[in-house]
Amino acid sequence: MGAPLVGSRTASLEIPTRQRCEMVDITSRVREVIAASGVREGYVICYVPHTTAGLTIQENADPDVTRDLLYKLEQLVPHRDCNYRHDEGNSDAHIKASLMGSSQTVLIENGHMVLGRWQAIYFAEFDGPRQRDLHIRCVDTMGASQ
Amino acid sequence: MGAPLVGSRTASLEIPTRQRCEMVDITSRVREVIAASGVREGYVICYVPHTTAGLTIQENADPDVTRDLLYKLEQLVPHRDCNYRHDEGNSDAHIKASLMGSSQTVLIENGHMVLGRWQAIYFAEFDGPRQRDLHIRCVDTMGASQ
Amino acid sequence: MGAPLVGSRTASLEIPTRQRCEMVDITSRVREVIAASGVREGYVICYVPHTTAGLTIQENADPDVTRDLLYKLEQLVPHRDCNYRHDEGNSDAHIKASLMGSSQTVLIENGHMVLGRWQAIYFAEFDGPRQRDLHIRCVDTMGASQ
Repeated sequence: MGAPLVGSRTASLEIPTRQRCEMVDITSRVREVIAASGVREGYVICYVPHTTAGLTIQENADPDVTRDLLYKLEQLVPHRDCNYRHDEGNSDAHIKASLMGSSQTVLIENGHMVLGRWQAIYFAEFDGPRQRDLHIRCVDTMGASQ
Repeated sequence: MGAPLVGSRTASLEIPTRQRCEMVDITSRVREVIAASGVREGYVICYVPHTTAGLTIQENADPDVTRDLLYKLEQLVPHRDCNYRHDEGNSDAHIKASLMGSSQTVLIENGHMVLGRWQAIYFAEFDGPRQRDLHIRCVDTMGASQ
Repeated sequence: MGAPLVGSRTASLEIPTRQRCEMVDITSRVREVIAASGVREGYVICYVPHTTAGLTIQENADPDVTRDLLYKLEQLVPHRDCNYRHDEGNSDAHIKASLMGSSQTVLIENGHMVLGRWQAIYFAEFDGPRQRDLHIRCVDTMGASQ
């Protein structure tokens, strides 16, 4: 306690996606941004500036976990539904994006994200393939005078 | 990097809603709070202090997008379900609120929110019409000495 | 406005859960961490480092509200589904965790969380019973010189 927050940094990454619905593990790219920022203690905010994609934190040990997540989201919110009115044909992507959320916040200690053992950060693409953007801001809460 | 966070500000807005389920675009009202705060670089936290309403970020170009979101949420979580036990008859509103979430964080650069081209912030009413509250805190990460 | 952020603090709590799916009210434990941190103005970030549990903010006056939330999540994302591929048999828990989210941010004013009258913070267990961890960071936005 008692130390000033000493800085922040925003980076913007390009995330290419290859399928209509896909979970892209962006953990290593977020780690690179944190390392470049020099933030040792604080947190990182990841933000998706799109309305048909989101972010979620999930297991990356078994790829079937994110496969099952995509399967169930598609079952609950099918691509085609005769009651959708939005005429671009991607209402499901908008809805899935809202269910996952546009941002994730992860704590940083000793320069590293405090992720659980099995956790990874996923860019959740629901209307790809596209070239997507991801904004990342690292907030430093360790005072320079400590 | 290296600049202290220099301030914060919390505002509380009244959000009138007009229907039981409704997505109210609050983007311009959040913008006004940010402008009044003077924050140039940082982020804004929007927070809903209710349990039958939430927040989501979605497209505002075509109103059918939020209409389809409300349609699908109602299909998945109907207002009436004989297996609900909460006797106020609004279990669906609580569940939808948890699916959308209570808060949203958006980055601020050069005094403006870093929203995507199609993004707007929506107050997600699920048990209106009511007079609702929305808390907004702007956090400044630009040092006074920069 | 104008005051530096003066500190932060991360605490890690153990959360024992007793059922496979359970909403554990952790509000009082988060309050204790905030009180110990000395933060008077700012916000608290709660973070779950697991992939089969999450966090949500919901009503704690009537326990049927969280019961109905768990009921509906189970109806939408059943424990058993012959199309799941993840062979640990807990795909539903991963999916439910992503729907609730890994973190919650709540504002702090005058040393207290700015929760709505009926709001409580719930640890959402979907694959218990287990001994779980919860990370809590209090961020101070009140300048020492104010």
